Amino acid sequence: MGEKYVIGLDYGTLSCRAALVVCGTGEILADTVQPYKHQVMDQTLPDGKTKLSRNWALQHPQDYLDAMEITIKSVLEQTGICGECVIGIGIDFTSCTMLPIDKEGTPFCMKPGYESRPHAYVKLWKHHAAQYEADKINEILSRGQYREKYKIDEKVSSELLLPKAMQILDEDPQLYAEADQLLEAGDWLTRTLTGSGKRSASTAGYKAWWEEGRGYPEKGFYEAFDSRLQNFVEEKLKGEICPVDQAVGYLTEDWALRLGLCSGIAVAPAIIDSHAGVPGSGVLEKGQMMLVVGTSSVALALSDKSYYGKGIVGTVKNAIIPGYYALESGIAAVGDSLEWFVTNCVPESYYRQAEKEGKNIHTYLSQKAAELNPCESPVMALEWLGGNKTPYVDGSLMGGFYGITLQTKPEELYRALIEATAFGTRRIVESMEESGTKVQEVITSGGISKKNPFFMQIYADVLGLKLRVAENMQTAALGSAIYAAVAAGKEKGGYGTIAEAVRAMTRVEEPRYYPVKENQETYSRLYKKYKEMAAFFSRWRA
Amino acid sequence: MGEKYVIGLDYGTLSCRAALVVCGTGEILADTVQPYKHQVMDQTLPDGKTKLSRNWALQHPQDYLDAMEITIKSVLEQTGICGECVIGIGIDFTSCTMLPIDKEGTPFCMKPGYESRPHAYVKLWKHHAAQYEADKINEILSRGQYREKYKIDEKVSSELLLPKAMQILDEDPQLYAEADQLLEAGDWLTRTLTGSGKRSASTAGYKAWWEEGRGYPEKGFYEAFDSRLQNFVEEKLKGEICPVDQAVGYLTEDWALRLGLCSGIAVAPAIIDSHAGVPGSGVLEKGQMMLVVGTSSVALALSDKSYYGKGIVGTVKNAIIPGYYALESGIAAVGDSLEWFVTNCVPESYYRQAEKEGKNIHTYLSQKAAELNPCESPVMALEWLGGNKTPYVDGSLMGGFYGITLQTKPEELYRALIEATAFGTRRIVESMEESGTKVQEVITSGGISKKNPFFMQIYADVLGLKLRVAENMQTAALGSAIYAAVAAGKEKGGYGTIAEAVRAMTRVEEPRYYPVKENQETYSRLYKKYKEMAAFFSRWRA
Repeated sequence: MGEKYVIGLDYGTLSCRAALVVCGTGEILADTVQPYKHQVMDQTLPDGKTKLSRNWALQHPQDYLDAMEITIKSVLEQTGICGECVIGIGIDFTSCTMLPIDKEGTPFCMKPGYESRPHAYVKLWKHHAAQYEADKINEILSRGQYREKYKIDEKVSSELLLPKAMQILDEDPQLYAEADQLLEAGDWLTRTLTGSGKRSASTAGYKAWWEEGRGYPEKGFYEAFDSRLQNFVEEKLKGEICPVDQAVGYLTEDWALRLGLCSGIAVAPAIIDSHAGVPGSGVLEKGQMMLVVGTSSVALALSDKSYYGKGIVGTVKNAIIPGYYALESGIAAVGDSLEWFVTNCVPESYYRQAEKEGKNIHTYLSQKAAELNPCESPVMALEWLGGNKTPYVDGSLMGGFYGITLQTKPEELYRALIEATAFGTRRIVESMEESGTKVQEVITSGGISKKNPFFMQIYADVLGLKLRVAENMQTAALGSAIYAAVAAGKEKGGYGTIAEAVRAMTRVEEPRYYPVKENQETYSRLYKKYKEMAAFFSRWRA
Repeated sequence: MGEKYVIGLDYGTLSCRAALVVCGTGEILADTVQPYKHQVMDQTLPDGKTKLSRNWALQHPQDYLDAMEITIKSVLEQTGICGECVIGIGIDFTSCTMLPIDKEGTPFCMKPGYESRPHAYVKLWKHHAAQYEADKINEILSRGQYREKYKIDEKVSSELLLPKAMQILDEDPQLYAEADQLLEAGDWLTRTLTGSGKRSASTAGYKAWWEEGRGYPEKGFYEAFDSRLQNFVEEKLKGEICPVDQAVGYLTEDWALRLGLCSGIAVAPAIIDSHAGVPGSGVLEKGQMMLVVGTSSVALALSDKSYYGKGIVGTVKNAIIPGYYALESGIAAVGDSLEWFVTNCVPESYYRQAEKEGKNIHTYLSQKAAELNPCESPVMALEWLGGNKTPYVDGSLMGGFYGITLQTKPEELYRALIEATAFGTRRIVESMEESGTKVQEVITSGGISKKNPFFMQIYADVLGLKLRVAENMQTAALGSAIYAAVAAGKEKGGYGTIAEAVRAMTRVEEPRYYPVKENQETYSRLYKKYKEMAAFFSRWRA
């Protein structure tokens, strides 16, 4: 048996990435990114005339198929690997990104006569127009016992499946009635590739309150929100739930032909995109935490206890790594905050000097900020430019700075902003620990983790933890490839368990950033002040 | 009797301004500014080798005389007014700006052999090197009853006369012993011009705890700080105290010759520079407030009650306008904060666009900020970039911003900073009102009051008060001229009282800025939030 390969597909908000991965080692031989043709539709439909209201965010499902075809063909072509050596496909996808389909599995927006019906399209995860429905759900939940029974967050977000489904029911009841299913775009893709009606345990668990053993909530639960939802699960959420370590189905001949692969190879169930990074980072055991630091940050730590509270979500077992719950949180704007800063708050003279020194503005500011000791500048910041998840669970909270004098320089504000995201991360770690799971090891990935050592050292000092960096930055695509190798199974050249696959296919560098004792002490003191400031602003409303 | 004129001399930190004023109308016919040759000495003495320690700030008294001669001659020359028509000179001066002189009135730094003795020079108001002495004074005051007895502030500043005198005693006791007097530079100038040994009630009252009727504190008070101070008043503060509405003396022949004026004309006692702006602004009655808005702001309101507390100083009667106490406060950095902002926080694109539109960056930012309604942006700021006077009396407090999102634009921060200085001013007005004096009318002057209507409208809306603007911006120089006209007296073509002089010599425009009811209500709501934020940060230390 020659070398075997798997393909990991990572569907993000604006593009799809395919990675061709060596099954035995996890090496990514090639990866390619393809942007979606329609990107995010938040103004008009493709007809160019149907206007969308505020907070809408739609996508076109054809874009997903096109991107898949282009990227898979590209990685095969680049490497010259023959399609016959590919034993599986894994997919990760943003979530809850959902759409209505008919009995044949055709998205309504692709059926003639539906082109101008907004609800016929894919609702992207960040479609926030179902707030009315989310408010209604929260209002009703606050009166009953369902929240405890189903471990539902204190505030149900409009991003979940139910509010989005209810918005279709409220605003286009005819389409709702016609729909054979409402399902996650990731599930629709695996269905399209395999013909299998199974849904992934990953999205069902995290976005639709499904739980292994118990299933979805009972009928009465849905009926409480709208009498027309009495048979919601049977009518609209059809399909068996597939565990994350099994194949959801096998590639059809049609699609094998289109993609240049063999029919019958395993397709893994779709995993939530950030979650695929967990195995992709090599995170496999209790107390390990994945920390992806990019435009935003995602923190996911494995735990043997279920937990929900303080903005930490960890109520779904087995949906990432079998045997574990995954405590999840993150900071909404990290790289985005720094980008906001350089766009809005950095004077011309700094850009000139950076240019003169041949440096990117972030590199230049980081170098100037690195010349300061912790606490040398009195400036402290709050990192809530995109709201706060942990511990306040409040998207309306905002960022700030304190400690400004007439001598304050831009690099002090920049450094304070980085420190604030680190303090916010320490708060997440602390909340996870309060839930009973001590974070012992942090494995970082994401753009900033490779590019900005100054930034990472602050994180090590603030968290008081050694930081390891995932060797391969495409942790989500690699994670999808890992699920693909497990779906294919040992017999076909894959693996019997996720644990086996992770051990073989990921490599994490030795710890690269160690906390400096003196800085760690300084930051522990500042962290107390940070928490006081955070507590004040969590209650203060302008 | 032909038209009579008076000269107002306004001695600031870096320069002296002379204004030639028509006695009958207050019209300023000419004014000229002359910078001091030595400016502020904070590194070395004029010998070029004697180094000064941190926080020192000295001046050279010869600069004051030179500037006077140059500016007075210039205004006479410019206008062609004959010296014989000038009936008086008034002086305002920074304070406590003090120096040691010998029996002949010669400053020690101008005597041979003393050129390299730092304590022989003028200690400028912002000489902060007597902190050791100020701390000692505070420590001792905290144990006794003197604070209440003499209405001494909770924290005696190192800027006052006693700490500066004690620093000389501590560090150059020989010079201290030789000195015939320690006196304010303003008093030294009037002494030089007239030969009179009288000191001004203005500086004695505000900077040396002198009080009409009672005089300086008793012997035991000074002895408490240092046994060598037992006879401090008799030994070093010789000289009768001159009320502000009388002549301190009359011009000597020598000086008349040097200045091109007539000998025997009245010289008014030196007034603290910001205080001279009170009559110069036309502020004359209880409930009127002068508000000078420039790099910093000064608020002075007339009251019939003595008050000290919450950073409002108002314990000296008759030292500005006879019959009244003047409640004093202000914001340390106003224009300075906006200047800090445009230097450090405004991106290149804004400068480009401002340039394209042919606008100053402040004008451009103000216009963009003016497009927002109050409360439209969630950003709120704290204006403490130079510390807080009222109500926290804490120079170590700092500025900040809250309410930042990824969508926040520079003009939102800029507007918030202006609003914060307005909220800070409302806090001052409120504290004055708590002391029993309702502020009913605000008369503004200073650079910003004429240049930035957007800024002024925010002040009207936040204060909920009509704002009048002083017609002539040189309110301090005009105030000095008013004191000169009163010192000259009615008989010589001047005035019998300050009230008469102010009514004749100042003009205030009709109210230019009226509070917009809707904005006023919005700002009243925001002001409550501002106060909560201020209270939090007044206790929070990084």
